[in-house]
Amino acid sequence: MELKSYLNERLRLVDAALDRALPSEQTRPATIHKAMRYSLKAGGKRLRPILVLAACEAVGGRIKDALPSACAVEMVHTYSLIHDDLPAMDNDDFRRGKPTSHKVFGEGIAILAGDGLLTQAFEVIAQTKPQPRYPTAKFVLELARAGGSLELIAGQVEDLEGENRAVSFDDLRYIHERKTAALIRCCVRLGAMAGNATPAQLKAVTTYGHGLGVAFQIIDDILDCTATTEQLGKTAGKDAKANKATYPSLLGLEKSRAEAARWTESTLKAIARFGKAGEALRALADYLLKRTY
Amino acid sequence: MELKSYLNERLRLVDAALDRALPSEQTRPATIHKAMRYSLKAGGKRLRPILVLAACEAVGGRIKDALPSACAVEMVHTYSLIHDDLPAMDNDDFRRGKPTSHKVFGEGIAILAGDGLLTQAFEVIAQTKPQPRYPTAKFVLELARAGGSLELIAGQVEDLEGENRAVSFDDLRYIHERKTAALIRCCVRLGAMAGNATPAQLKAVTTYGHGLGVAFQIIDDILDCTATTEQLGKTAGKDAKANKATYPSLLGLEKSRAEAARWTESTLKAIARFGKAGEALRALADYLLKRTY
Repeated sequence: MELKSYLNERLRLVDAALDRALPSEQTRPATIHKAMRYSLKAGGKRLRPILVLAACEAVGGRIKDALPSACAVEMVHTYSLIHDDLPAMDNDDFRRGKPTSHKVFGEGIAILAGDGLLTQAFEVIAQTKPQPRYPTAKFVLELARAGGSLELIAGQVEDLEGENRAVSFDDLRYIHERKTAALIRCCVRLGAMAGNATPAQLKAVTTYGHGLGVAFQIIDDILDCTATTEQLGKTAGKDAKANKATYPSLLGLEKSRAEAARWTESTLKAIARFGKAGEALRALADYLLKRTY
Repeated sequence: MELKSYLNERLRLVDAALDRALPSEQTRPATIHKAMRYSLKAGGKRLRPILVLAACEAVGGRIKDALPSACAVEMVHTYSLIHDDLPAMDNDDFRRGKPTSHKVFGEGIAILAGDGLLTQAFEVIAQTKPQPRYPTAKFVLELARAGGSLELIAGQVEDLEGENRAVSFDDLRYIHERKTAALIRCCVRLGAMAGNATPAQLKAVTTYGHGLGVAFQIIDDILDCTATTEQLGKTAGKDAKANKATYPSLLGLEKSRAEAARWTESTLKAIARFGKAGEALRALADYLLKRTY
């Protein structure tokens, strides 16, 4: 498949849906809606929503039914970046090549913009069309669990607490699995649910999503110490500077690359059953492993 | 009715449900669950969840069915207090007589604890038993809208932006209706929905909740300039110090008291139809108008 045109087409579809899912910049109070839209439009690759749609297709669903989930996961992802970039957390001034929310709007509005996106995510996903196997409430529950204090937030907490202290390899896996893999796994599960997946299909995309999420974060760690700030669109070398444990710092670069490849392989194996319908999921895993920024 | 023993009994019921609805303090990562529980247990009156249960009873429902909504609104309320107290927002060191979350756990964890409670609220409400007139997704939608950027967060934003600038009476009403009334209205609507309210019943509790919420915030404004820090359990005189527009600063104390009484009267009128089943809602409105701290 021609991945580039596929990604472009899907990106346009997701962007249009996100635009419809948020109050306009003129809606009172204008500040908060400007801030919510600023971060949501800050040029992400829309990897997560595209994964939602691809998983829906893999199980034979209609992507229209997966659009609310696609928008909701992007909102959760964006809220977590806004809060993560705050001075009290990672204290980053740039994200995707643009000044972070608190640099543009101030800390108070940045916190509220994150809160607003998180809340809006649930408003959007609560409007999902129920499927025979999955009532709408199941979608809400899935997102709340992946974004909650045992998953996404747990990863942020241990990441924050891990700076400047010894972190074991087990701790690092705990952080990666929660900070990154939990939401990516959630993406493909939501997509599959929107396509009324059988239990076996749901299990297959779960294995795929978990492996892809772990591989994705390992590669993020690698790029932080091999790519430039310009390539990344965010400050490079931050992990080393913050004395953060990463795959390269604990295992070395070569072993880290092998680990990422191993996880990617396991994801491809998990979705072999989908045949041609799983082509997009396959291409996405391949693309993410080979990315250089 | 004996309001004091009623409130005590309901408070125990709500506290037990909240305790079950959150991971234990020992659950990894312990810091975040300690912080979430610290603020949730910080001695609130549980007014909002008790309103949820009372509205459910008023329409003839079983309060067991309203418990998820009751827990969820208290979590949303608590998250909004944690974030509101942050240095970048109202910068308050005390809440309910205890140090605020960021004073105990640091700003980063306080932000994440708020995020965790907000997310958990949706996990809990997504487990609401559907009623013939109200599928579970309706409960989620109701909470997301009341907590979102057009309601609760809108109030916080304009409150934050209103410091040190001229705020008209219309602006002040906009802020009060969103910062306080939206969630209180949501409480009684959720409770009524959990009791499978008829459209007319739902309309009546909505009028009640809106009036009660506005009256409640007017009284809060009054107490800020008439009660002591010890009585309030939070810093008194903060509004005047921050040059915040309030009912007393715009209308004077006497007219503000009359406004609060007028709103309370309208609430009592709205629920007259419930007869004896609405006794708790009536007693609560009465109690809130007469409170002195």
